[in-house]
Amino acid sequence: METSFALSCPLPITKHKTIVLGHGSGGRLTAQLVRDLFLPAFDNAALRKLDDQAVLDAGSARIALTTDSFVVTPLFFPGGDIGHLAVNGAVNDLAMSGARPLYLTAAFIIEEGLPLEDLARIAQSMALAAAEAGVAIVTGDTKVVNHGCADKLFITTAGVGLVPEDASISASNARVGDVVIVSGSIGDHGMAIWSAREGIDFDGRLHSDTAALNALVDAMTRAGDVHVLRDPTRGGLGTSLCEIAASSSIGIEVEATAVPVRDEVKAACEILGMDPFFVANEGKLVAMVAESSADAVLQAMRTIPQGRAACSIGRVVSQHPGMVVLKTEVGGSRIIDVPFAEPLPRIC
Amino acid sequence: METSFALSCPLPITKHKTIVLGHGSGGRLTAQLVRDLFLPAFDNAALRKLDDQAVLDAGSARIALTTDSFVVTPLFFPGGDIGHLAVNGAVNDLAMSGARPLYLTAAFIIEEGLPLEDLARIAQSMALAAAEAGVAIVTGDTKVVNHGCADKLFITTAGVGLVPEDASISASNARVGDVVIVSGSIGDHGMAIWSAREGIDFDGRLHSDTAALNALVDAMTRAGDVHVLRDPTRGGLGTSLCEIAASSSIGIEVEATAVPVRDEVKAACEILGMDPFFVANEGKLVAMVAESSADAVLQAMRTIPQGRAACSIGRVVSQHPGMVVLKTEVGGSRIIDVPFAEPLPRIC
Repeated sequence: METSFALSCPLPITKHKTIVLGHGSGGRLTAQLVRDLFLPAFDNAALRKLDDQAVLDAGSARIALTTDSFVVTPLFFPGGDIGHLAVNGAVNDLAMSGARPLYLTAAFIIEEGLPLEDLARIAQSMALAAAEAGVAIVTGDTKVVNHGCADKLFITTAGVGLVPEDASISASNARVGDVVIVSGSIGDHGMAIWSAREGIDFDGRLHSDTAALNALVDAMTRAGDVHVLRDPTRGGLGTSLCEIAASSSIGIEVEATAVPVRDEVKAACEILGMDPFFVANEGKLVAMVAESSADAVLQAMRTIPQGRAACSIGRVVSQHPGMVVLKTEVGGSRIIDVPFAEPLPRIC
Repeated sequence: METSFALSCPLPITKHKTIVLGHGSGGRLTAQLVRDLFLPAFDNAALRKLDDQAVLDAGSARIALTTDSFVVTPLFFPGGDIGHLAVNGAVNDLAMSGARPLYLTAAFIIEEGLPLEDLARIAQSMALAAAEAGVAIVTGDTKVVNHGCADKLFITTAGVGLVPEDASISASNARVGDVVIVSGSIGDHGMAIWSAREGIDFDGRLHSDTAALNALVDAMTRAGDVHVLRDPTRGGLGTSLCEIAASSSIGIEVEATAVPVRDEVKAACEILGMDPFFVANEGKLVAMVAESSADAVLQAMRTIPQGRAACSIGRVVSQHPGMVVLKTEVGGSRIIDVPFAEPLPRIC
């Protein structure tokens, strides 16, 4: 445990004097807010790593701890709902450290007037997701605010997992030569939310990929030497890769044609002028795996439903440390950079 | 770990078809919502206890886990702010199981337009509260919603603590003969919030009691045999006593004149027609302590700032199990019952 707090909290050096939507986008503005405002105030070793979970000593056990608020709109969307998302979000953040997810908390902020039937449906969906992931929702809280003081329902989950003794998976652990693997197609969740909002349904082919990834991670770590795991949620695959490149001080090369994107997601992205690389996923992971065991890990992934379409998309390189380079179809290359703010707010 | 989920989730048998403010009050409507909707969906042994925290095995360690959302309005009030409250709320829920609080998570749901200066002030306040309690805020999340979709700022904290091997403190553990102890005056927090909202300041004498109670609990458990601990937040002392009487299947007798209530809190309650017994506290606890060690526990409490005004207010009795009886000034007695809903919404 670390209890040395810096009690000074300088205001962020930014042109903003108030919070804007981009501060919650998972992009550069979010990173700036965390780095300039929260980190100086709460400063401690676990937080400083800026992983999606903290790995900590609790007596004789080593645990992982994570939290996320879910403010997605609409509450129900093709392929899932806010409840399913809230459970899988916590489960996946734990799994990305190699931890075995055990327990979740669930705190509900409800706007007066929400139909009880909707809340019951969402609770059922959370129970189903928890059962699928093998975790228990062990404690919770319920707050209600006046009509107009929240947007229907916000759910915050926190999760506790048990970290195996030999685990050393972290965004700062990528090594030159590692193979970059994704577990399946990207951009599905973000485009499903967009289609639900806009009422454009592409013949019902846009679905959220919301899913628990702990079974997939378990299969991967048994099969080979996994160095980095991230679930590319807000900010998408592009942002996750940039964060890993920066944390590990390595370069990443990605073959554009190798990255799986479903046709309907491509089409939706073209309509919106968006890049699937920066669209949110809720049931996918990206991994950096030692070259020697990459094939074994890929084979193991394909035996698990959430990894059936797993594939290699690139390499960790010693050139351009901290940068992600996309090799395009036509033989060119372009640098991938973290967007200032994600174009779709309230995606999770 | 418990993973047997009941996947059926019957709708609550209630006249309400939608969520009303009372569902978040901590009173009978909240209990009904938890019992009829969340419990059947998430059903597991830890949740079924309905304590303010779950006590769980994590590998070789025994941990306590808790969560609370904070939606208090205004964000800043006499004696504290939402950040101080959010840290102490998690710390105290852990301490009430006898656990040593270690780590907190903090998830922020922010309304677009919140001044960054306010957020920085709140983060500083959280850091200060965490330092005072000796815990670290190790991971977090930031979401931003459009203007009008939240009320400035909601904070959800979760906390993890380490439970000593010999701890058996629970709301279900009160025993006949136990002495009922409160750590100080009641009703201060609720009346401070009310005064801040209404602009009635009683010469600035109404202050929230927001404080961490883990040092107090530590002193108490070292000094004697503590059976039950609760921090009477939403719903106040009255609701906590009723919950303990029900959980332990014992009766509780309280001497009205022994319960400390500050004059200005009494006056504010009279103006509002409210009973201080049901007004929220954020830095007080109620305990059931074995008669043989009650004096030692009281003495130990008075050495700690948060317990300086600790006193005995009643007894656990075998009569009227499940019921709390208040012996009034004039020699009469009345039954204390959980209110349907707390009269002051968004108190924490």
